[in-house]
Amino acid sequence: MPVNLPPLDPAQLHPVAGVRWGIAEAGVRKANRKDLSLLLLDAGASVAGVFTQNRFCAAPVQVCREHLQANQDIRALVINTGNANAGTGAPGLAHARQTCEAVAALLSCQPGQVLPFSTGVIMEPLPVDRIVAGLPAALADAAASNWAKAAEGIMTTDTVPKAASVQLQIGGKTVSITGISKGAGMIRPNMATMLGFLATDAAIAPELLPALARELADGSFNRITIDGDTSTNDSFVVIATHQAGHAPITSWDSAEGQALKAAMLQVARQLAHAIVRDGEGATKFITVQVEGGKTQVECRLVAYAIAHSPLVKTAMYASDPNLGRILAAVGYAGIEDLDQSLIELHLDDVHVATLGGRHPAYQEEDGQRVMKQAEITVRVGLGRGTASDTVWTCDLSHDYVSINADYRS
Amino acid sequence: MPVNLPPLDPAQLHPVAGVRWGIAEAGVRKANRKDLSLLLLDAGASVAGVFTQNRFCAAPVQVCREHLQANQDIRALVINTGNANAGTGAPGLAHARQTCEAVAALLSCQPGQVLPFSTGVIMEPLPVDRIVAGLPAALADAAASNWAKAAEGIMTTDTVPKAASVQLQIGGKTVSITGISKGAGMIRPNMATMLGFLATDAAIAPELLPALARELADGSFNRITIDGDTSTNDSFVVIATHQAGHAPITSWDSAEGQALKAAMLQVARQLAHAIVRDGEGATKFITVQVEGGKTQVECRLVAYAIAHSPLVKTAMYASDPNLGRILAAVGYAGIEDLDQSLIELHLDDVHVATLGGRHPAYQEEDGQRVMKQAEITVRVGLGRGTASDTVWTCDLSHDYVSINADYRS
Repeated sequence: MPVNLPPLDPAQLHPVAGVRWGIAEAGVRKANRKDLSLLLLDAGASVAGVFTQNRFCAAPVQVCREHLQANQDIRALVINTGNANAGTGAPGLAHARQTCEAVAALLSCQPGQVLPFSTGVIMEPLPVDRIVAGLPAALADAAASNWAKAAEGIMTTDTVPKAASVQLQIGGKTVSITGISKGAGMIRPNMATMLGFLATDAAIAPELLPALARELADGSFNRITIDGDTSTNDSFVVIATHQAGHAPITSWDSAEGQALKAAMLQVARQLAHAIVRDGEGATKFITVQVEGGKTQVECRLVAYAIAHSPLVKTAMYASDPNLGRILAAVGYAGIEDLDQSLIELHLDDVHVATLGGRHPAYQEEDGQRVMKQAEITVRVGLGRGTASDTVWTCDLSHDYVSINADYRS
Repeated sequence: MPVNLPPLDPAQLHPVAGVRWGIAEAGVRKANRKDLSLLLLDAGASVAGVFTQNRFCAAPVQVCREHLQANQDIRALVINTGNANAGTGAPGLAHARQTCEAVAALLSCQPGQVLPFSTGVIMEPLPVDRIVAGLPAALADAAASNWAKAAEGIMTTDTVPKAASVQLQIGGKTVSITGISKGAGMIRPNMATMLGFLATDAAIAPELLPALARELADGSFNRITIDGDTSTNDSFVVIATHQAGHAPITSWDSAEGQALKAAMLQVARQLAHAIVRDGEGATKFITVQVEGGKTQVECRLVAYAIAHSPLVKTAMYASDPNLGRILAAVGYAGIEDLDQSLIELHLDDVHVATLGGRHPAYQEEDGQRVMKQAEITVRVGLGRGTASDTVWTCDLSHDYVSINADYRS
């Protein structure tokens, strides 16, 4: 049961000029499941991607990196669920390339113009024949209005499809930004695979796109955590089709550039939050804000220490204001010269700890009141400087263990 | 239900000449509970300690560090359960000092010759009056044969008391080494507080003791993890009373020095393993060996990434050979230039992965067979060098969530 994540309304997802999605059932792992999605791009679109930092990255991630480095003119993305094609060695790489070749043959383009994505069980051979056999049906299904269907097509054990969409005006033209994501379901393979695809028909100077993709990821997907397990397949792709008809954005300094970037960040963040809200067994959506650091990096260290602590996460699940656990996480986060006597802790509006100890006015019932909410903000002050950072996470429940322990047993 | 941890047999715990334990019920948090323990040392003993790296360290840890730095002649350790005296600011420090003063008054020694330890709920004021009031009863109880009672006296939500003891011959004299530990029960306060006390009547040159304490901790307590949450109160103390009557050990190079150190490490490791075996909700005892690294540090990074992964730990709980999760943890452990095509993975004797992919001969039923055992060794080869390291951990079960989430709710 996702936390405050309403059902997807397909009518609220704006098509993006130059982007079509086709979805098919290829039987990758199970029959009668939308498990193959094809994103088709008109010529001239720009594409940038950000991929997992896991050194054990999946074969499709390696091929994506190669193709994006060598090609300016990406024409298709092909995504299968049911198998991550990770931990598959040299044969896995060959399978990812074979998939690209099959798509290229259908579209009369080069294999290097196709980006492959896989999510699902790892260390099992990709059933590439079934994927290739399913491609014509996916191609035949292609339509600009298929965003909601694609959000469903990339799901694994997600409980709901995830998408976000906004429009804004640039130079008198309507620009659409639409994205989908999946993750946190951890199907049988169970690698918490996160995928995000965000497209806009805005015209953006292509050379701006790679840095934009990284900046959007840093403000959204790179600030969430369910369980600290970095997947082998994480991928986030940003597409600009340039078809909205306005003069191209060539810098982010203009008012229009700022508005566009803010709108894209809003969509990316909504998609990232949706993953946390649908996190395995999640019952709470938790924002961890760390302020007063010397650097943003040390604030992030502290925020992740809190967000990853099983003790903090189980206390959140229990609505138990056992808040010393948060102080302990602050203490072991890795700031060598931390002065504990300067630490402040708020839970929403409740001042829990001051100068490293319990706040004199703090009452456990105030903490309890906040802990019972479905949305909680933990705010830590380090008293060392002016930097800050924010991370989003969920709680750790019985269902998390069930989902990850019981599925294959 | 601890994993392969037989009930404590008091008769197997050898007294250590020069050490007496007295235990009392002080009602720190609850009535009718052994919650106050006093370790009394004859004059002339040497004491060294290793304490939590948590920057939010508890008040007693700060006082211990001070007293050990300033004093050569420690005469008593005083340990309370039920309250960790952590996150308590300046009043907490005053309470820890007050406890030492009360012990010193009873023993006619200096407060600086007393080391205080606390474990239990954090961010609550220490009921120092009740502790002081309980001291005379603890003193009256003092006896050399009280090791098993002390193991019970320092328990929080441990399900069993933990102790280990060996004897060996040095220079024709019998030397005893006995230790106790607690942890992983995470009582209501829930800080996974680990305490370990190890004493020997061996004669050891006092200047060797601080480095020995660190080395013993590094080979035992510093290689275990239940959930990655570093406590505010972790303390490990090594005591040598020098009363066994043999010529003092002045270097570890002699055959006798080597034998003594090996015996002390054996006891320390048994105590550390006992904490994992009694880990919250533990059903499996898991040894993670990482070999073929360039440095021991990078092997340890990888071993801890595996040992902390909630996905690996839930798979262990389910006896589910979902072993790609281990490869993923290897990949995100933090070795920047890791070559995934060199990775080897064994589960006990079963060769699961070779050259970064599934081993051709690997059958899931072989993995399953090992996963069903109560004791499992995960062995990873990095293919980068000759360094290795080992970490011990347990699985992540429904009971872990229950113990940490349900207790206060």
